[in-house]
Amino acid sequence: LAERELIEFIRALRAGQDLPWLEVGIGDDAAVARLPGGDRAVLTTDMVAEGTHFEPGTPPEAVGWKAVARSVSDLAAMAARPRCVLAAVCMKPGTDAEFARRLCRALWDASVKLSAPLVGGDISSGPGLVVTVTALGLAGSSGPITRSGAQAGDAICVTGALGGSMRGRHLTFPPRVAEAVELAERCHVHAMIDISDGLSTDLLHIAQESKVGVALDAARIPVHEDARALAGGDAEKALEHALNDGEDYELLFCLSKKDAEVAVQSGVLGVPVTLIGEVGASPTYNIILPDGTRHALRSGGWEHLKT
Amino acid sequence: LAERELIEFIRALRAGQDLPWLEVGIGDDAAVARLPGGDRAVLTTDMVAEGTHFEPGTPPEAVGWKAVARSVSDLAAMAARPRCVLAAVCMKPGTDAEFARRLCRALWDASVKLSAPLVGGDISSGPGLVVTVTALGLAGSSGPITRSGAQAGDAICVTGALGGSMRGRHLTFPPRVAEAVELAERCHVHAMIDISDGLSTDLLHIAQESKVGVALDAARIPVHEDARALAGGDAEKALEHALNDGEDYELLFCLSKKDAEVAVQSGVLGVPVTLIGEVGASPTYNIILPDGTRHALRSGGWEHLKT
Repeated sequence: LAERELIEFIRALRAGQDLPWLEVGIGDDAAVARLPGGDRAVLTTDMVAEGTHFEPGTPPEAVGWKAVARSVSDLAAMAARPRCVLAAVCMKPGTDAEFARRLCRALWDASVKLSAPLVGGDISSGPGLVVTVTALGLAGSSGPITRSGAQAGDAICVTGALGGSMRGRHLTFPPRVAEAVELAERCHVHAMIDISDGLSTDLLHIAQESKVGVALDAARIPVHEDARALAGGDAEKALEHALNDGEDYELLFCLSKKDAEVAVQSGVLGVPVTLIGEVGASPTYNIILPDGTRHALRSGGWEHLKT
Repeated sequence: LAERELIEFIRALRAGQDLPWLEVGIGDDAAVARLPGGDRAVLTTDMVAEGTHFEPGTPPEAVGWKAVARSVSDLAAMAARPRCVLAAVCMKPGTDAEFARRLCRALWDASVKLSAPLVGGDISSGPGLVVTVTALGLAGSSGPITRSGAQAGDAICVTGALGGSMRGRHLTFPPRVAEAVELAERCHVHAMIDISDGLSTDLLHIAQESKVGVALDAARIPVHEDARALAGGDAEKALEHALNDGEDYELLFCLSKKDAEVAVQSGVLGVPVTLIGEVGASPTYNIILPDGTRHALRSGGWEHLKT
């Protein structure tokens, strides 16, 4: 399933349609709709499916958390403030009632913890366990921040550390909501995304939407201890995990070097911020490896890995 | 899966939470959230799953229409004006690319036709075909209309004709959006629901949420020709189809007898309106059969059918 291709297909269908109230449409982390009263609704929908986003046998508490946190993380990527979520739960016929109740409780608990209380939903039987969460947020005065505003000369920064989330963090991560709002208030963030597909892929999303180039400094990438654990002693393998695993749900953002300096020095709400590269004017995508060699950055890796 | 039980379970969890901005929460056709700028967002999420809401082999055009129309019908039930939808599409790995493109186009086309353009979504592989559509609407000055406002002495009315939708209408129905808005502007509608579970069940939803009784006059129920076709020449079987099949997506609503008279006389935007019963003060649920006998109305039938 080429999600990207289908998104472009729908975008092309939309091309003829004039929607003056739609500030941000298909292809960003969330849509932004201006409402008649002046509110700007930030909307995103995201699913977790058994076998794809979690293994069979995963406790319903983890499934519920991940389902809500993923959608709320998309609000964070826009620096929006969460308001509420809705959840649609599809379960196999004959699903244990206690499992269903635990999942519902988990969805409720996660939604309250993430300041986006569950206000509606749908429960039905179907081919397997699929939980779809839609989040409504409100764009702050300094937002929404899209993927398309990166400027040549910007620094590329990331929160936290990356890689190896399949060791467990992909089910327990805290979406960087408060951090995103704080960042947007403190600095002029030009573009932002949450890392779900992986640093390499998501940085290219920013680059392509912003029509700019990027140069990633591999030696600066904050490698998570989970990535190191997976890689044994192999530093290059650990780097690959940090670059390509995805499901980190950290913030990847571009801002002026001056603003970046401040963010890196102070971090944001206790979360470290690291400068990992630079935006360029020409649309080339590069990564400088720790040995100083320059390679073409690709979605899911770099050039010499694929030859 | 006892959806109703799980909804009550979540409602009980919510009981402790003070959400002053939430005008309507879990348990109605849609949630209503007041936003800081004064807009009232009407939100609903609904899924269609293969094997439950449509048979394997159903053309993607029909799946896409039903997915969008069901959610928009929930907005209609609140007399809200549609603004936009989001769609999450879960497909089996290896799903034909042409099928996926046709489904995406169907979602887009349906959304535009129903004045709720698709502004975002999620596409992923999973255990089977499940399409979840979330709709955002805006409460009009005369809305939102909930399930809980029916008053003793009200007339019970319904648009269109009921029963037999499994013959095909469940995939092609037009949600009664414009009709609902028009009704709400013209009359003082006290309570409304769209018929998805079936007239008997959905009328009991209104009765229970409004804490009133109902008396349904079976002879007046508009029986769809599809119901008659399924029943052969059996009038009681046809009535049972009209009463219990569901997936009619017609509007079922309560309003003063005076207002009902006007609605019945003129219909709404070309759709007939029929008076089918009366709201009572004591919480008893009755149906008067065409032979004049009175029976207890149950979800999915009436009493003597079950003995």
